[in-house]
Formats: sequence, structure tokens, C-alpha cells
Amino acid sequence: MGSEFELIRKYFTHPGQHTVLGVGDDAALMRLSPGRILAASSDMLVAGRHFFPDTDPCRLGHKALAVNLSDLAAMGALPRWVLLSLALPRADEAWVAAFAAGFADEARTYGVDWVGGDTTGGPLNLSVTILGEVDAQRALKRSGAVPGDTVWLSGTVGDAALGLAALLGRYPLPEAARQGCVGRLERPTPRVALGQALAGLAHSAIDISDGLLADLGHLVRASGVGAELEYSALPLAPLLAERASEALVREAILAGGDDYELCFTAAMADTEAVLAAARLTATPVAAIGVITAGAGVRVRDSSGVFLSTRRTGFDHFSSQGQQ
Amino acid sequence: MGSEFELIRKYFTHPGQHTVLGVGDDAALMRLSPGRILAASSDMLVAGRHFFPDTDPCRLGHKALAVNLSDLAAMGALPRWVLLSLALPRADEAWVAAFAAGFADEARTYGVDWVGGDTTGGPLNLSVTILGEVDAQRALKRSGAVPGDTVWLSGTVGDAALGLAALLGRYPLPEAARQGCVGRLERPTPRVALGQALAGLAHSAIDISDGLLADLGHLVRASGVGAELEYSALPLAPLLAERASEALVREAILAGGDDYELCFTAAMADTEAVLAAARLTATPVAAIGVITAGAGVRVRDSSGVFLSTRRTGFDHFSSQGQQ
Repeated sequence: MGSEFELIRKYFTHPGQHTVLGVGDDAALMRLSPGRILAASSDMLVAGRHFFPDTDPCRLGHKALAVNLSDLAAMGALPRWVLLSLALPRADEAWVAAFAAGFADEARTYGVDWVGGDTTGGPLNLSVTILGEVDAQRALKRSGAVPGDTVWLSGTVGDAALGLAALLGRYPLPEAARQGCVGRLERPTPRVALGQALAGLAHSAIDISDGLLADLGHLVRASGVGAELEYSALPLAPLLAERASEALVREAILAGGDDYELCFTAAMADTEAVLAAARLTATPVAAIGVITAGAGVRVRDSSGVFLSTRRTGFDHFSSQGQQ
Repeated sequence: MGSEFELIRKYFTHPGQHTVLGVGDDAALMRLSPGRILAASSDMLVAGRHFFPDTDPCRLGHKALAVNLSDLAAMGALPRWVLLSLALPRADEAWVAAFAAGFADEARTYGVDWVGGDTTGGPLNLSVTILGEVDAQRALKRSGAVPGDTVWLSGTVGDAALGLAALLGRYPLPEAARQGCVGRLERPTPRVALGQALAGLAHSAIDISDGLLADLGHLVRASGVGAELEYSALPLAPLLAERASEALVREAILAGGDDYELCFTAAMADTEAVLAAARLTATPVAAIGVITAGAGVRVRDSSGVFLSTRRTGFDHFSSQGQQ
């Protein structure tokens, strides 16, 4: 598109706080704090797959950055800089202005400098790379869980997936509940402060983007351990707590995804320290299970029976859901 | 796509050389050399716009990384790490394997670790973020050109654009020449070694992706200066040199783009040092003009007359050309 440079200049140039050289050269230049190492992660969001093409662009701007902030939170890293590459079907200035406003607002909230990226014509696609810094010895990896660790979860799970089900007409909700769940879907809260408070304390961490079972599954596989969760201990929004025995709600909770909460493990002896980190960062956390010497993730109901969690039973909220 | 994780594991996981933690966690972790700052740049390539959908995937893998390496070369930075986000219409394993082979081969050639990214379903889109390091005081910015500087260009310009014109059926070429020009289009050579040799020596630099006039235009605007080029001094491939007076060839040379050569400026007193840097890195360079106190870029023909270079006359090779 001919107006590429004008669009970038108008909306995508923001003053930097820890940036030597921002948007406008062949590359951005940034200085890390002494003794820290670089953390980097990329996420690509495609219209019709990760979001509805008619999603409010300002909310989409927020979310595009939030899901990337969540990745750094899960490493215990401090987000510092972001690059955004954007393919747009046409130069729709109102859309770009609203999207950029949401993205820039999220960046300001988390002290992140918007230092570069690309703009081009093409099917709507948002590709974000987040950069941050962390102490090498304190980074939260997926691979550090050990048997006996407590499994923790921040916030609540399942409400974002139920919001998606409501938008798709698959689960009718009263209007207030619908707004709450759709809000969770469209405006996730990256747990950046909690992630940093856990750095050097938790043994392992991951963020919940694909669903609790799937993501905790990645963590236990990377650690060479297993996990046993108590279904009744899962932290749920009030609406879900009432209906937690319904099959679709259960599926939303265990396999829904889009929660962007942190799932992490820590030594049982550090329970008080974890709770203190949660209080310090005003982030609710709940102990939901334990790490075992086994493999995979099992979930026990309140009568002690393991739930069937075969993958095939949990695909209503897969990434295909929005196609 | 369900096989996302399998694809990533199979093709996108390569051992790192300067990487603390590569593919497979929420973020990659990397350590910069002491005293260096971070350089980062993103490029998004869209099928049907930046490349033909049926482009050989191995060559496309090479090019997707090469155009990003070129951005760091233009900063005088050392490329170290890369993240690749990829949207694919379907999980075509043969295509992914060939693309990944080309991308990984280019990464190995330039000593770059492939540390992360994303894979998703969607219209074919390649989004690359390159990370590197540079001495803060020696980085090559667009904004450092001063009147009296010599304007230099590496390699040759115009042949990639003529290759595109040949592929589009707009300019018939003998088979050998056609192969040479298409090869330049599909396998650009990022001038990484030259860029580093020029760090701390050149006053300013940019890489030629959108065409010599457009990109040098960005450089002079950022520096608050002008440039006067000698058309007869432009370094051309033999085929173009023979036909340099033809209108379409002239347009390819001045506005063609896709060359990924470095255009840079240096003090006239540093001419010998520039030539030594070029010899050291086995990269041809040519002096093509001077920086003036004016504005914009003007091109003089061999009789001393300024060529007309109105933008409207130079759009056969714009980014719309491949649509």
C-alpha cells in the first residue's frame, strides 16, 4: 500500500523509554539492563482463526499485545519492547487508528516501547514480537517442575472459552454473564507482575493459551513429570462455579484456552512465599494439584475418581472453533 | 492446524550457538556480548505481493531470512537470532520441509540461531524478526549523512527488478540473462560482512529494498540533506550496462527494488578506508554521487543533465507489481 510510510509515521511512532533508536531506521536499537539476558517471543494472529474479522479493532490491538506479554510473564521476564507486523486488506485509516490506539494503550500500561515492525497489504494478519529482559538464573522455564511441587493457577479458567461459545451461539448466557465472558475473551490480563514476582521462586511456569490440560501437558512433558489436579480446586468465575458439572462448562474449564493465566509449580515449602507474591501483585492464585513422578495430566473429581480427558472429547474450543 | 507442534519440533528446532534457551518454551532466552546493544527488525512477506505463491519454497526460505539479514547489515549489526512466524493455508509437509531447509541453511551460513516463532493456519504469510548486536557508538543510522559525503553502493542494482519483469512477461531476456536476473531476485545476498566493516566508518546507511531513489530518499530525509548521483557511475550487471539507456532498464535501476544492496555515505577523506573494507569483505562497492546541502535525490546523466525521476514514472516495479 502506498500510504505505508504515512500510516507508520502517524500511528506507530511513540517515544521510547529504554530505547536508543526506535521506529524509522533499518532496525531498532535497545539497551538491556546490566547483567540481564534477552527474552523474545512471537505470536501470529490470523483473522477468522484467532479473532473474528469484525472484532472491535481497539480491543484487538489490546489483545494482540496482551497475548505476547503473557508469554514473557510466563518466563518471569520484564517486557520492554515490541515489534508489530501488520498485513491489511486495504488502508482503512479508521481501523488502523483504533487498532493502534488499543495496542499503544496496552504498551503504555505495561511500560513497553513500540520500536518497529512492518506494514503491508494482504489478508488481515497481526504478527507481534515481544522483547524483554530477565536474570538468567531466575527465568521461569517449562522444564523445572519436580515431583512434590504444588501446581498453581492464577485468576480463573474457562470463562474466555465460554465467551467464545456464546459468540458462536453455542451456549446461551444471560446478558451480564455474556459480557463478562466475552470481555475475558477479548481483553485478557497478562500476569506480568506475578510472573516477575515468581522469578527465582517458582520451579516452572507456562501461560494458558490453548487450554489448561494442553498447556500443563506441555509443562509436564518438558519437565519429565506428571500432574494430578483436583477439579474442585480449579479457580472459576462465579457463573462457571454454578455450572461446573455441565459437560460443556467442564470442557471450557479444562480445554478452553484463551485464559492467559499463569500455571506454575513451586515447592510445597514455598507455599507462603507464593501467596505473598500473589498478594504483592494483587493477583489471585489457587493451588490446584501436585506434580508426580508419572506422566501426563490427570484430573480427579470430588469423589476421587479420575475424569476422562481424552483429547477427542475436548475439541469444541480448539483453534478451529472460529473458522 | 493440529500438527503445529510436530511441524515445529521436526523442522524448526536447531541447536543454538549463542542461545541460553531456544524453541520450545514461552520465550527464547539469549545473552548479548558484553558492552553491545540489541538491534531488532521485522519484515512481513505476503504471498501474491512479495513473492509468487508458487515460488520454490527452499529459495523462499533463503530469501525470507536474507531480507531481514540485510536490515541488520544496514545498521552495521551482527545478526545473532531469528524468530519466524508462518501462516500456512494447509499443513503441506513437503512445502514446510523445503522452506525450513532453505531458511535453516541461510541461518547457518550467517551464524544465526533460529530461536522461536509461531505456526498457524491462514493465508500464506511469513513474518520474520531478526535480532542482533552492535556497538552503540558504531551503529549505522540513516540520519548521519553530511554534505560532502561520498554516496556509495555495494554490488549492482536493477537486475533483480529486471528478473521480476521477465517473470511477469514484461521484458523478454535471453535464457542465461533471465536466469541471472531471476536468481538475483530470488536469492539476494545480504551484505552482512560489509555492514559490520563499515560500522564506525560510514556516516549513514540503508539497504535497497524499495528501489535506489526511494531508499536513498529515506536516508537523505532522515539526515536533512540531499544527494546528487551520476547515472553513469551506477554499478550495473553486464546485461544492464549494455541497455542502460532503455527506459524500462533505467526504471529498473533507479526504482526497481529487491536488490538488498547497501547504500551508504562516508567522508571523502575515508575513501581508502571504505575501499579497504570492501576488499576485506570481498564485496564490490562503487562511489555513485555526493551528499549536498539540498533536499531529495537527483540523478545526472553523462551530459550533465538531471534525469526526470518523478515517482509516477517509476511504478512498474512497485510492490503492487506482483499482485
